[in-house]
Amino acid sequence: MASETAFDFDDVGFAVPAIPGMPESAIQTPCLILDLDALERNIRKMGEYARARNMRHRAHGKMHKSVDVLRLQQDLGGAVGVCCQKVSEAEVFARAGIKDILISNEVRDPVKIDRLARLPAFGGGVTVCVDDLDNVPDLSAAALRHGTTLDCLVEIDCGAGRCGVRSLDAALAIAEAIGGAPNLRFAGLQAYQGAMQHLDRFEDRKAKLDAAIAQVREVVAMLEQNGLAPDVISGGGTGSYHFESMSGVYNELQCGSYAFMDADYGRIRDAAGNRIDEGEWENALFILTAVMSHAKPDEAICDAGLKVQSVDSGLPVIYGRDDVSYVSCSDEHGVIHDPKGVLAINEKIRLVPGHCDPTCNMHDWYVGVRNGVVETLWPVSARGKAY
Amino acid sequence: MASETAFDFDDVGFAVPAIPGMPESAIQTPCLILDLDALERNIRKMGEYARARNMRHRAHGKMHKSVDVLRLQQDLGGAVGVCCQKVSEAEVFARAGIKDILISNEVRDPVKIDRLARLPAFGGGVTVCVDDLDNVPDLSAAALRHGTTLDCLVEIDCGAGRCGVRSLDAALAIAEAIGGAPNLRFAGLQAYQGAMQHLDRFEDRKAKLDAAIAQVREVVAMLEQNGLAPDVISGGGTGSYHFESMSGVYNELQCGSYAFMDADYGRIRDAAGNRIDEGEWENALFILTAVMSHAKPDEAICDAGLKVQSVDSGLPVIYGRDDVSYVSCSDEHGVIHDPKGVLAINEKIRLVPGHCDPTCNMHDWYVGVRNGVVETLWPVSARGKAY
Repeated sequence: MASETAFDFDDVGFAVPAIPGMPESAIQTPCLILDLDALERNIRKMGEYARARNMRHRAHGKMHKSVDVLRLQQDLGGAVGVCCQKVSEAEVFARAGIKDILISNEVRDPVKIDRLARLPAFGGGVTVCVDDLDNVPDLSAAALRHGTTLDCLVEIDCGAGRCGVRSLDAALAIAEAIGGAPNLRFAGLQAYQGAMQHLDRFEDRKAKLDAAIAQVREVVAMLEQNGLAPDVISGGGTGSYHFESMSGVYNELQCGSYAFMDADYGRIRDAAGNRIDEGEWENALFILTAVMSHAKPDEAICDAGLKVQSVDSGLPVIYGRDDVSYVSCSDEHGVIHDPKGVLAINEKIRLVPGHCDPTCNMHDWYVGVRNGVVETLWPVSARGKAY
Repeated sequence: MASETAFDFDDVGFAVPAIPGMPESAIQTPCLILDLDALERNIRKMGEYARARNMRHRAHGKMHKSVDVLRLQQDLGGAVGVCCQKVSEAEVFARAGIKDILISNEVRDPVKIDRLARLPAFGGGVTVCVDDLDNVPDLSAAALRHGTTLDCLVEIDCGAGRCGVRSLDAALAIAEAIGGAPNLRFAGLQAYQGAMQHLDRFEDRKAKLDAAIAQVREVVAMLEQNGLAPDVISGGGTGSYHFESMSGVYNELQCGSYAFMDADYGRIRDAAGNRIDEGEWENALFILTAVMSHAKPDEAICDAGLKVQSVDSGLPVIYGRDDVSYVSCSDEHGVIHDPKGVLAINEKIRLVPGHCDPTCNMHDWYVGVRNGVVETLWPVSARGKAY
């Protein structure tokens, strides 16, 4: 190995970006690092919040796609299980022994339905969302075929504008069909207002959630009148969980991003007008990048571009510095405005990604760091599991 | 297996989205598919173009990250080798037996330099870019240590605003330093104008490339006057290769996207004002997606969101249809405007991704399709190799 470093990548090649025990300065860039102290504080805090409000917290595994992070959310944060969006993700969590899995999404393809119906054989409860009557017999037939039971939530579109029904009649018809279908159980409602999570102003988010809660309350009352009282009313994200928790109607939260945070969520404001990354949640996830060109005095080029982060919600923000700023991005490069020319070649920089979920999905590893030293490597267990 | 399909995913789980021999309709979505006929035509066409103009074509592997596609570019298209952006990518191509590798980027980290210097041991030429005098002794020492030779190109910033020097003096000083350094060879210039490739108007692209070519010509003349005549003048992308080919100064093209195409490149115009995806290049790459919710009559939800595509250059375009359009995107969902309600649940749709390079990098597999049947699966060999 080169004399420049005491650590030896030879045994592992570039299969991993770091080796436990090495200092943060020796990590190969670009990669994802987790500040383990900050992560654990975020996880404990959400656990305490949910417990104090008598809410279940089902951690959203679609954000991190990591069995290890999910276990931490269960062990330190009291999470009751995982939610995820795809059957292929659910298989990863089920095989890893996670016992209570909600696919917070519809499953329509026959092959996927068949695989979904096998998941309870791993030994835990499996719940799926339904927004179409026609889906019910397919789910039932598959569960029957495999001798399993699937819990089903009727998905309500309470403002996200994606999946989910909008009428009381549709919700009732689906709930009744589930209730009458062999090997299915009507368990409740999925009501996640995804479209308001990132609105910066607290009042704007509150207005959207007030409307969503009113809608959910109406559906619940209608179901109760029809003898189909729902057990589970699930929803809530990092931008909304206060509202669901205080609604008196939701009983399960699905927050995911709180654990890692990102630049887009960081910008939203709490009731007092403070950024939620200044007090409410800590940045625990960073893209570690290094300066690899500085041929122009006021412009440094770093090695983190579009292949290590999603910029759908804006560019990353350089953490803890206001003397330099990340101003543009191409496939493999980031351009950093460095007006005073303070950055040195190979200098490492922590970026807070614009949007954590699709950023994490590009990487194979989380490098867990504590006190400047690599403590652990966790695989992004369900990376690329989009089926 | 479920009776719904004659094919059995059981043996392979969701490790792959398709099995050779199955019809396109049975492919698990979302995934990348390649129209093999279109791909082969694009590759042959670029080969014929380069040959006719006496240009070398070094195919850019950063786009597809696939050893199999690269081999096709060599075998059918006469490509002289590969370029890529990272040492970890180069390792993948070198281990696969690709013999002529250019890292069209700077390498500064000591660990990466050390690994770079070992690559010639795989039996082929290895070239790297340099834009800083301080890089030269590090590269030289590493090559000396491993008993190898590294070819070096001085990178010129001819308008991309990323890496590369801007002054004649800097270019000369680096070329001289390379020429005098043990185990390095000064091979020429890297001059890729990345910033103009996607300008829609032909005249706008031509103006940028005219300026770039003038600048490169000046550097070449200066180097010749100093006894450092460059062998290689490398650059050119899918939006510019005509200009470099007719410049009389460039002798190597680095086009990558031409082989797959994407929606953003498709919109640019040729000299006659025609879109380049209408005649010049065919769409060979698609994201295959399926409708998985249609609870609102005019809005279908498909299963391809931010985790299977990069939207940095715009949303994907639905291929071959003008009755429906992809209008928005979240992590796992795409919203399709379907004003007449023509889409059915589980209906499969081909999307042309907005930007091919960072989209391909999210996937594990290319599903090669010909005449509606899956012919082959190719791994995205260097996916995630960002180091």
